[in-house]
Amino acid sequence: MSISYSSVYEPLTEQGAISLTVRLGLFREGAPLVCREIGDGNLNLVFRIVDKEAKKGIIVKQALPYAKVVGESWPLTLKRAVIESNALRTFAGYVPQYVPKVYYSDESLAITVMEDLSHLQIARKGLIEGKTYPLLSQHIGEFIAKTLFYTSDFGMNQQEKKQLAQSFVNPELCKITEDLVFTDPFFNHETNNFEEELRDDVEALWNDDKLHLEVAKLKRKFLTEGDALIHGDLHTGSIFASDEETKIIDPEFAFYGPFGFDIGQFFANLLLNALSRPEPQQEPLFAHIDSTWKVFTTIFSELWHTNNVEPYAKTKGLLEEVLHHTFVDAIGFAGCEVIRRTIGLAHVADLDGIENKEERLQAKRHALRLGRSLILQRQNLASTEEIRSLFTESVSLTAN
Amino acid sequence: MSISYSSVYEPLTEQGAISLTVRLGLFREGAPLVCREIGDGNLNLVFRIVDKEAKKGIIVKQALPYAKVVGESWPLTLKRAVIESNALRTFAGYVPQYVPKVYYSDESLAITVMEDLSHLQIARKGLIEGKTYPLLSQHIGEFIAKTLFYTSDFGMNQQEKKQLAQSFVNPELCKITEDLVFTDPFFNHETNNFEEELRDDVEALWNDDKLHLEVAKLKRKFLTEGDALIHGDLHTGSIFASDEETKIIDPEFAFYGPFGFDIGQFFANLLLNALSRPEPQQEPLFAHIDSTWKVFTTIFSELWHTNNVEPYAKTKGLLEEVLHHTFVDAIGFAGCEVIRRTIGLAHVADLDGIENKEERLQAKRHALRLGRSLILQRQNLASTEEIRSLFTESVSLTAN
Repeated sequence: MSISYSSVYEPLTEQGAISLTVRLGLFREGAPLVCREIGDGNLNLVFRIVDKEAKKGIIVKQALPYAKVVGESWPLTLKRAVIESNALRTFAGYVPQYVPKVYYSDESLAITVMEDLSHLQIARKGLIEGKTYPLLSQHIGEFIAKTLFYTSDFGMNQQEKKQLAQSFVNPELCKITEDLVFTDPFFNHETNNFEEELRDDVEALWNDDKLHLEVAKLKRKFLTEGDALIHGDLHTGSIFASDEETKIIDPEFAFYGPFGFDIGQFFANLLLNALSRPEPQQEPLFAHIDSTWKVFTTIFSELWHTNNVEPYAKTKGLLEEVLHHTFVDAIGFAGCEVIRRTIGLAHVADLDGIENKEERLQAKRHALRLGRSLILQRQNLASTEEIRSLFTESVSLTAN
Repeated sequence: MSISYSSVYEPLTEQGAISLTVRLGLFREGAPLVCREIGDGNLNLVFRIVDKEAKKGIIVKQALPYAKVVGESWPLTLKRAVIESNALRTFAGYVPQYVPKVYYSDESLAITVMEDLSHLQIARKGLIEGKTYPLLSQHIGEFIAKTLFYTSDFGMNQQEKKQLAQSFVNPELCKITEDLVFTDPFFNHETNNFEEELRDDVEALWNDDKLHLEVAKLKRKFLTEGDALIHGDLHTGSIFASDEETKIIDPEFAFYGPFGFDIGQFFANLLLNALSRPEPQQEPLFAHIDSTWKVFTTIFSELWHTNNVEPYAKTKGLLEEVLHHTFVDAIGFAGCEVIRRTIGLAHVADLDGIENKEERLQAKRHALRLGRSLILQRQNLASTEEIRSLFTESVSLTAN
């Protein structure tokens, strides 16, 4: 007899979370354990259990069967917990230094037990505080290069790749991105959320045929191109960081998607932070963008030449072709992310946290212009340095 | 306890095939049945069972756990029988008039029981005999338009599409295409098979960097782009035809692939037949190419405007963009197919059947030139009519 998913599932209590870690032997016997639920309660329960003497912590994360955003609540598959733990394990096969260790997972309870990263800070929060995280782009560039290469048709047996892709089919979470990143912000949709003062700027986007065509092409790539196992939600809120360490978390949106997507989302969130800073403090963010791309291409190219399983690996021009399209797509995806984080359902604290209202509105107008330029100009940019020019152009315009 | 696949499987006998159809109630009681195995024994057993009085036939097809081509034998997944029967059923949901009815399938025995199409002829055979099948392109154009549209992100709920794609993941059969269509013919590989007299022409392809880059790009599309459920092997040997009817069979290579692939393979096999004909009899084949594309675009466009589920459906230029890329890709895929059918492992009777050796070699040289031109010129062709110019150019050259 098979037991159905929902009949087993129930939300963990703090005591239940402790019992689980003890049962798993993750703490020494008799350790004085304390547990606290530290999640935001919108998508997941997150329990932090600490051995007070040994100062050792463990995280127990459990997916909730619904999502809450801005007061709305809708059902959301528990399978995302399986996607998350499997993605963390797959990534750990290539870059164990950049993901939390997974100690245990339970599909029917939608639970993942993993390394406690409380000594680090969510990168978005630190960036908003003005931190620069000097190694962030080197780590993220390496993370992206290795996970993309090794899960692609260039770095993995092409038949095994198809089976891995099959195990990461992720319709419900992909739909969130398809709607909230690629669609709703570009139409008069009820999920959108923006200050009334921005209405003219927003309506201009809704009526922009040229922009619609380009976003439609980018969305089609997201819907159809299965290059590699991507994180799927690699914004600065999915990154724990310190000056020395970087850990990527929350890959519940992972699936086989286009090479450029993770890079684009990361770029976009650095740009959103730059938009919230005074000009003299923006430089480290642009430097991170340049360095992410440089590290990514260097490592990806090295792996291409040393570990490539594709018979056409040595074909003149193929690597350049792949990198070029990855770059162009990344810029376009970045543009979509910048726009949706400004007027769509899920905002970023970088912009929303600007206290002065006029400055906040101005930053958001700049964001909309920058997003649009990134999408429309993506074929014309020769390097990441030119993102800076688009940025400067966007923030120097003061009227529509 | 679960019973494993291989412990149940055994090849059917003629008596076993009869018993199965009787058990399924496909013949009236007491019908005088005769059964004959009519397959070529290389990949499948194909039993034709006929009620001699009612003149009614049924086909029982069973996959064999190996493939034999040119004396070689290698293991081949039985799952292809499930892919085949599921693809036939999926296609029947959109174009029942163009596929055999499936009455029954058994996964563990790798059996599909289906409509008998013996009143029709394999199109390749008829084309070689000089037949023209006046409705062939209209039917194939409609088949391709409807199956591609309705299984794509434009014609189907985008979440259901992902699940359908997941059920058609087909690594082993895809590998055959990846190797035999996109790779081996372009390298000095042991599977290749060509007359020694062609060696200079073949070696020129092996050393053609420009060609390699373009084929590599096309292969990458085949590996990564999941536009729609494609047949995957739509040559003229997978089509039963008469002057009135057309039925597409053998979709065991079906998977979620690029829009242009089936069209390209069909074009290529019409061109291979044209290469085997005297010039005055080539016209109907070019007319079929023009008409296939015209019917495909007309029906696809109509469905786009009436049945589109994608919010960007009405975006100016998007349909044109999709059709343009489909066309360019189709021409490129056609070029790969023309080349691999000339020098790769699996030839076509259209060319191999040319009795005069010099004429045969000449036709094959023309095929290699045509294939190369299709691949390299694909971006420059404005319409299917221009395929004719490339063809004329290729056959008018007599030296390398």
